[in-house]
Amino acid sequence: MKYTKKQRQEKLQNKIIENPFITDEDLADFFSVSVQTIRLDRLALSIPELRERIKHVAREHLDDVKALPEEEVIGEIIDLQLDKEAISLLDIKKEHVFSRTGIARGHYLFAQANSLAVAIIDEKMALTAKASVHFHRRVKEGERVIAKAEVKGTKDGKTIVHVVSNVKEEMVFYGEFSMYRSGK
Amino acid sequence: MKYTKKQRQEKLQNKIIENPFITDEDLADFFSVSVQTIRLDRLALSIPELRERIKHVAREHLDDVKALPEEEVIGEIIDLQLDKEAISLLDIKKEHVFSRTGIARGHYLFAQANSLAVAIIDEKMALTAKASVHFHRRVKEGERVIAKAEVKGTKDGKTIVHVVSNVKEEMVFYGEFSMYRSGK
Repeated sequence: MKYTKKQRQEKLQNKIIENPFITDEDLADFFSVSVQTIRLDRLALSIPELRERIKHVAREHLDDVKALPEEEVIGEIIDLQLDKEAISLLDIKKEHVFSRTGIARGHYLFAQANSLAVAIIDEKMALTAKASVHFHRRVKEGERVIAKAEVKGTKDGKTIVHVVSNVKEEMVFYGEFSMYRSGK
Repeated sequence: MKYTKKQRQEKLQNKIIENPFITDEDLADFFSVSVQTIRLDRLALSIPELRERIKHVAREHLDDVKALPEEEVIGEIIDLQLDKEAISLLDIKKEHVFSRTGIARGHYLFAQANSLAVAIIDEKMALTAKASVHFHRRVKEGERVIAKAEVKGTKDGKTIVHVVSNVKEEMVFYGEFSMYRSGK
């Protein structure tokens, strides 16, 4: 179905409110228009681009990473509430995929999730004791992986962190990490 | 206890036969002599250096990696019998450790084990479905991690690969990987 420009801009605003992680490319697909058109719509509506949008939304509850320097996190942290929850983005590029298949190598999805599980810990040091991970579907070059970590509690003195990674609305990875923390 | 040169050279030969993965540094520690002395002993006894030694020993049963290009394996494969067992070495360097603690980041140990679990599969394509991993002790910059993978059988159509990683004789990592393979 084709919308008028006015209809599209209204709908676009709602789509972005519903899902602040939606990319211009996804919006262009959804409305069957070019990415350029979406950019012009955003300009008209004064909606900043995805990265800025998320940072702006997230900034008010973005704690500082404690357990490692932020640049050692794999992916970009866009939300962090220490010992509660955290979100990071990883754009899958050429260097992350198997050359033959273009499929993301498992250890990059693991690394994104694992560094988020370290970053979420409210201590100067955190180390992974155990991890149980499931790769649900193949991730391809060009896809954006959004990992959400949540602290689930304590077991045998370790902090349990669950991480779910999605591409768009689809789960691609799930991991449970058991984390040592200094001082606890 | 100090040995004479002759005693040391005899013992050295035995040590290397017992453990072909032993480094010159470990031998120097063991005999309380310098690394240079160990090198001269090896020269006198015509024992090649570790890397050459292992390659020579392993070459007769070193299959070609099928499931990925060998240069995409994390670590150096020194033994490979497809669908049976495989061994790789990873020297932990500055880029593998947390800057604050000098402790190896979990995802590098995971990546070494995971790529070995991919490489061991006797198919053109293999992907990780699940993994359950345990980090037993911290690994420091300068340590050499030796991962040994073994195919344990099939479960729900997936190939189960166990990987044990040691530093010297001590287990530092254990993982169980469940692998998809094309054509099976």
